[in-house]
Amino acid sequence: MKFLSALLVFLMLFNFSLCSQNNEAKDRELLRKIYDEALMRGKCYEQLRFLSEEIGGRLSGSPQAAAAVEFLHGELKKMALDSVWLQPVMVPHWVRGNKEFCRVISPFTENLRICALGNSVGTLEGGISAMVVEVKSEAELEKLGRKNIEGKIVFFNKAMDACHISTFKAYGEAAWQRVWGASKAASYGAAAVIVRSLGLREDDYPHTGVMVYDEKSPKIPAAALSVRAAERLSKILKKHPEMTLELEMNCEMLPDVLSYNVIGEIKGSEFPEEIILVGGHIDAWDNGDGAHDDGAGCVHSTEVLRIFKDLALKPKRTVRCVLFMNEENGLRGGLKYAEEVKKKSEKHLAAIETDRGGFTPRGFDITETKDGQIKAMRSWLKVFSEFDIEKISAGGGGADIGPLLKLGVPTIGYVPDSQRYFDYHHTEIDKFEAVNKRELELGAAGIASLVWFLSEYGFQGY
Amino acid sequence: MKFLSALLVFLMLFNFSLCSQNNEAKDRELLRKIYDEALMRGKCYEQLRFLSEEIGGRLSGSPQAAAAVEFLHGELKKMALDSVWLQPVMVPHWVRGNKEFCRVISPFTENLRICALGNSVGTLEGGISAMVVEVKSEAELEKLGRKNIEGKIVFFNKAMDACHISTFKAYGEAAWQRVWGASKAASYGAAAVIVRSLGLREDDYPHTGVMVYDEKSPKIPAAALSVRAAERLSKILKKHPEMTLELEMNCEMLPDVLSYNVIGEIKGSEFPEEIILVGGHIDAWDNGDGAHDDGAGCVHSTEVLRIFKDLALKPKRTVRCVLFMNEENGLRGGLKYAEEVKKKSEKHLAAIETDRGGFTPRGFDITETKDGQIKAMRSWLKVFSEFDIEKISAGGGGADIGPLLKLGVPTIGYVPDSQRYFDYHHTEIDKFEAVNKRELELGAAGIASLVWFLSEYGFQGY
Repeated sequence: MKFLSALLVFLMLFNFSLCSQNNEAKDRELLRKIYDEALMRGKCYEQLRFLSEEIGGRLSGSPQAAAAVEFLHGELKKMALDSVWLQPVMVPHWVRGNKEFCRVISPFTENLRICALGNSVGTLEGGISAMVVEVKSEAELEKLGRKNIEGKIVFFNKAMDACHISTFKAYGEAAWQRVWGASKAASYGAAAVIVRSLGLREDDYPHTGVMVYDEKSPKIPAAALSVRAAERLSKILKKHPEMTLELEMNCEMLPDVLSYNVIGEIKGSEFPEEIILVGGHIDAWDNGDGAHDDGAGCVHSTEVLRIFKDLALKPKRTVRCVLFMNEENGLRGGLKYAEEVKKKSEKHLAAIETDRGGFTPRGFDITETKDGQIKAMRSWLKVFSEFDIEKISAGGGGADIGPLLKLGVPTIGYVPDSQRYFDYHHTEIDKFEAVNKRELELGAAGIASLVWFLSEYGFQGY
Repeated sequence: MKFLSALLVFLMLFNFSLCSQNNEAKDRELLRKIYDEALMRGKCYEQLRFLSEEIGGRLSGSPQAAAAVEFLHGELKKMALDSVWLQPVMVPHWVRGNKEFCRVISPFTENLRICALGNSVGTLEGGISAMVVEVKSEAELEKLGRKNIEGKIVFFNKAMDACHISTFKAYGEAAWQRVWGASKAASYGAAAVIVRSLGLREDDYPHTGVMVYDEKSPKIPAAALSVRAAERLSKILKKHPEMTLELEMNCEMLPDVLSYNVIGEIKGSEFPEEIILVGGHIDAWDNGDGAHDDGAGCVHSTEVLRIFKDLALKPKRTVRCVLFMNEENGLRGGLKYAEEVKKKSEKHLAAIETDRGGFTPRGFDITETKDGQIKAMRSWLKVFSEFDIEKISAGGGGADIGPLLKLGVPTIGYVPDSQRYFDYHHTEIDKFEAVNKRELELGAAGIASLVWFLSEYGFQGY
């Protein structure tokens, strides 16, 4: 009897191992088809061209954002999906107005390249003229105190740390000055803030991005200096601490506007109630064309559905593409989506976001909500690594899918190579030509492959 | 007694495992220093700027090649290495002469962008005017036969296969037409050949590269059409099979010239007779600036020595940087180096070549000459993967170190991401601005890290 049960266990294990090998071979073949489809008959690059060159920067509430919703909605409708719909959401409507400028006016005059930060108030007409005080940390601000800050322009000049291999880590560490710098400085009476751009290259393109006012301090204008301008200003300040700077910004926040998340899905053949979300965000800063951020993520996501349709792949679970509105300056789309999920008690197996550009694929990261999810994904690396996807890291996701995490959904981030991302991020050179066709297509294929594994196996690994 | 020996084995294994963990922690710390040095105080980017912008295309035998030898020799001498020397080698001296051109002259006129292939003969003055026959394989050539080919220009139009994840694989498969196409076509009486450029992007930059004449067939002129021109010509031919093309090329092969491999080394502290070679090639095609191919490889290699010197790292084994001359159209430098190694019975533990551009690091490949070499390298991935070096593949090396393989030296290739390499390879846009500073520096750090492991452990893995 003992022998028999041992034999049974052996046969089961043997069978399981054969099964798993069969699956591996089958999956390998299927991924090969997905990659061929993406690389030979890909549609995402042309979609990105339209989104970048024909529409351009599409900040929430702008006519470009409305045009992008219409375009992407149309693209999904063309695909004969099981459902395509618009999810209404009210979004903030911040506008730049006439282009801002910044110049040294004493002891000599010199222009410095800047860009208003998103959500910032403008200066009054005629701008602000004031002395400048440079800081690199909150501690320095505190040490200087109100007597040295009041009425001045605070210049945050903390550079991103080039030592980190992941540029996102460097970004994460330095972003506080852009996001919270204005309110921090305002609490000591500052008249305005200018912030060193969050980029690793010494060039003259200012990087915009969101800033947030707290409720305790007065709202003061906030702008980003190009890295070169920041370096230059720092040098001028050392020589001429009494120098005066003039800053004019014409931006303002208008009333909220009705906009939409754009959604399309293929119903699962076996578990239609289990949803795998894949998405990016439609909105993009107005100074560039939002090609990497996040045009690439949008067209990656639509391409996943297109590949499934054109290869006639029938996913066991529902695959839903969600193109979010307002990631950049409010996250209203992501919040609205999660609210609806909660209201309808929808079940999401996983949510994948692609919002780190159209660069060459390296892997994925995941914030687990149950043990074993990351282990399952890592077991698939056996197949993924043949397609140069090598790493599944712990901890990750994306801003738009963050609210889903609170509902227990594991969030997964697509991780392309990060080295060049902050050369373009939120600048005027985030344009179509900054995206490489193959790198973009490989990203779409990699994400489609992960979606396939999730739809086949859930979080059961090999 | 049995118990005692078991205890002994246990203690040894335990000790070994502790040791290995200690090593891992120490190595991790050391690699962190190497990366910080490369990213914060790197010199390779500025060296590459000089090599690309001040010197430019430096084909063997040219004044630019001589200037590059002088510059790199000087850079190595600045570093206070244990030895720096020039290794003389006679190299071919091919010159382009007045710029070539190609145009449709009947039934209408239209210019097509071309570039003579390296080593090709020119046309006679006044050029060649002939009908064109398009082929995509040797089989097609054979099927057409002499009666359809004689006196005509053969147009090889086999595209690189975009499905391969590694673009080098696609390149390897399609390169025959550029290298051997002229002699193949000449054996059927062709007057000249034009070859579709080996690139994956549809643009108008012709890619030059080496071609080789066999001894049986007459030498006929050979040039590369840009991918766009090849697509265009193919279309014209379908509509007008009788069309005539005019081709003029003024290139020629001059007598051999004396040139040099540039070499510098740090002597090993424990095993000075065991050499770890790291190198790239100095020469570069004349149409661009050779920034990726292989300026990047040269400055990666010099940077390895600089990092070791500036961090005062004392390698146990000798680390030798070899900058080869004439990889592109003759391989004379690589052959000469191996000849000298053989003559002096020098022992090389390993030879590493970096000749795939200055892109973001992915891993290394290795052609083993003894079992266990790849296994050892893979054991180090535990540490490397923290620096985003994820893959050690079997089979690899580089052209210049190929001759060392025949002497039993394992050859290792640095493997950066390959997606964009053939956008620039052998074209006029292989310029300094095509190289990203961080990607270049990360490459140097990755190679320096591997050299450190080899110098510490030989091919003993963790």
